[in-house]
Amino acid sequence: MRILKDTTPMADGFHMPAEFEPHRGCIMIFPERADSWQYGAYAARKAFVQVAEVISRSEQVTVCAGAAQYDNARAMMPPQIRVVEMSNNDAWARDYAPTFVKRDIDDQRNQGLREAEPGCENNAGVSEIRGIDWGFNAWGGLLDGLYFPWDKDNAMARKLCDLLAVDVYDKRDFILEGGSIHVDGEGTCLVTETCLLSAGRNPDMSREEIEENLRQYLGISTVIWLPCGIYQDETNEHVDNICAFVKPGEVVLAWTEDENDPQYAMSKACLETLEQAVDAKGRKIKVHKLPLPRPVTMTAEECEGLDACWDEPTRRPGERLAASYVNFYIANKHVVMPGFNDPADERAKQILQELFPEREVVQIYARDILIGGGNIHCITQQIPE
Amino acid sequence: MRILKDTTPMADGFHMPAEFEPHRGCIMIFPERADSWQYGAYAARKAFVQVAEVISRSEQVTVCAGAAQYDNARAMMPPQIRVVEMSNNDAWARDYAPTFVKRDIDDQRNQGLREAEPGCENNAGVSEIRGIDWGFNAWGGLLDGLYFPWDKDNAMARKLCDLLAVDVYDKRDFILEGGSIHVDGEGTCLVTETCLLSAGRNPDMSREEIEENLRQYLGISTVIWLPCGIYQDETNEHVDNICAFVKPGEVVLAWTEDENDPQYAMSKACLETLEQAVDAKGRKIKVHKLPLPRPVTMTAEECEGLDACWDEPTRRPGERLAASYVNFYIANKHVVMPGFNDPADERAKQILQELFPEREVVQIYARDILIGGGNIHCITQQIPE
Repeated sequence: MRILKDTTPMADGFHMPAEFEPHRGCIMIFPERADSWQYGAYAARKAFVQVAEVISRSEQVTVCAGAAQYDNARAMMPPQIRVVEMSNNDAWARDYAPTFVKRDIDDQRNQGLREAEPGCENNAGVSEIRGIDWGFNAWGGLLDGLYFPWDKDNAMARKLCDLLAVDVYDKRDFILEGGSIHVDGEGTCLVTETCLLSAGRNPDMSREEIEENLRQYLGISTVIWLPCGIYQDETNEHVDNICAFVKPGEVVLAWTEDENDPQYAMSKACLETLEQAVDAKGRKIKVHKLPLPRPVTMTAEECEGLDACWDEPTRRPGERLAASYVNFYIANKHVVMPGFNDPADERAKQILQELFPEREVVQIYARDILIGGGNIHCITQQIPE
Repeated sequence: MRILKDTTPMADGFHMPAEFEPHRGCIMIFPERADSWQYGAYAARKAFVQVAEVISRSEQVTVCAGAAQYDNARAMMPPQIRVVEMSNNDAWARDYAPTFVKRDIDDQRNQGLREAEPGCENNAGVSEIRGIDWGFNAWGGLLDGLYFPWDKDNAMARKLCDLLAVDVYDKRDFILEGGSIHVDGEGTCLVTETCLLSAGRNPDMSREEIEENLRQYLGISTVIWLPCGIYQDETNEHVDNICAFVKPGEVVLAWTEDENDPQYAMSKACLETLEQAVDAKGRKIKVHKLPLPRPVTMTAEECEGLDACWDEPTRRPGERLAASYVNFYIANKHVVMPGFNDPADERAKQILQELFPEREVVQIYARDILIGGGNIHCITQQIPE
């Protein structure tokens, strides 16, 4: 693995493919910390295993486990899933596993971008993809981050590139999580203002400078800024919980018809932005509304099963969680989506099945993932083919 | 990775190839512990890097580093070498990385041994090799083992098979280190009685039961029992420090002409055994004598740079180390051998160069590896192609 500092993916002819393009594999992390996952993470682990198993039907899944949990993870995961030891602070592969970028061989030839790759002869077969190692500060650092320290999480992107024998772009001076971006693979990126302009991430950078980093590292030309995300989403409202590309020019948007729900105005504001937007190819965006489940709130019993973080409880009884069906993972042959035992579960599944006619939509009861603070998209990171 | 318990490599048509057959890669472990490696392992690490670099010219090298040393190992190792995080108690890849066995595709077809491999569809491309996870107890457990605990070392074989996505035979009920066996790839295995019959390993097993385990797991038919190894070799005299195959039917044997050296009688006893031996193919063994360096002993300054282990010093000034040129690694295009700044260095190198005319012999000053208790063969483990 070379650590690349003086160049960017765009300069090297790389771009981030869309999630619906073919994958070579998927990265997950085994959940462990007792202030994220209720009652010692036992229920969460079962849900993670279900997610991994479905993805493993069409992708090579690699699960990273801390040293103390390796044996347990190995015992719980089916044999076709690879378990590797890797230190972590928590289990959000989407946010701190590498963002992968790709350079097509044809592009290389056409654009004459093939460089000498000294010392990397053995990686020749995999040299088409590279990773990006963004800075990670637990969604807001000392200002409004969610735990401390986050050093092991921040080290994972580089370690994963090393493991996969792909070169890595060092962009640790720019704080970004994988869940805060969605791309269409054709030059467009979706983000939220609440997250990318948050005071806890890159407070000294202008919106233009942030856009320029996205362009250079994701190999895109157009950034669509949604104003916000899902109500109470403690990541400063990651885009991957409210809006996702299902194909170039088409997105799903989390939606409620309940005008009394604070989410109503938020989803409506996003819709208005999307209706005004033009993507990198000059297209208008087609928006498919995906219903939200009824508010999901913490029970007293669940709260009792969580260790405290710093000097206060991690969650309080009645606290509303940022439940959304948009937080799904697009695997090679499946779409893995959350369910909440909610009346809207079935309708949301139908909508996604219609939008992904060539993939089987599998719904997994995800309350135990949601309690940790995210959902299926948050705990997975695809490796492009 | 499947964990295989109810079958053996021989039953499945697998056998251990010789080290001089083609490799797909090599495993090493980054040295760390302060009671093994003098003055915080800084000098030892440089030697490990040199060894890894030479091997990486013709093989993919994977270096395992404990969590605290990952960044340092990554910074020291050249970029073509893969560094992965893996807990360890010390750095002896030969002894507790997996022993790999191989099944040729043709053999499979001919012998009709191909089984259904449920759940391992994604591993299809690598299903020809499997690992063996022997029990490891730090060269003698609580009786005469060299450190405690050894749990992390003992877990590495399985983790490495998982990392490489190859199935593993669980043979943890049999204590064996990779350095205590050498095979010719044609049915013959070399061992020493002092090691394999030691009281600290498998005291309840007879010589015949031990032989049967070697036959079943290495896929061999003939075991040649040398009486002993190198004087003062604290592994109970591993075979890999005194005798090694250079091709089927031919070995090198560590040798001294000094009749006053305790090693003289030991090497002579081994020679007599080899002269009487017949290998699996019915051949007599051709023995090439490889000179030993003059006795290498610990200096007071070196001893001061070692932490204590249990309640006594790890090494004492004047203590003789088990220096031997036989402790080399056969890489695809190189033979990596130790040097000791000894007058015999050059002659030993010449002999090996004549025996390996198609490989370049590279000699690395290895005193800092030797102080740890082994040498270049001990810190490497090949992965067959």
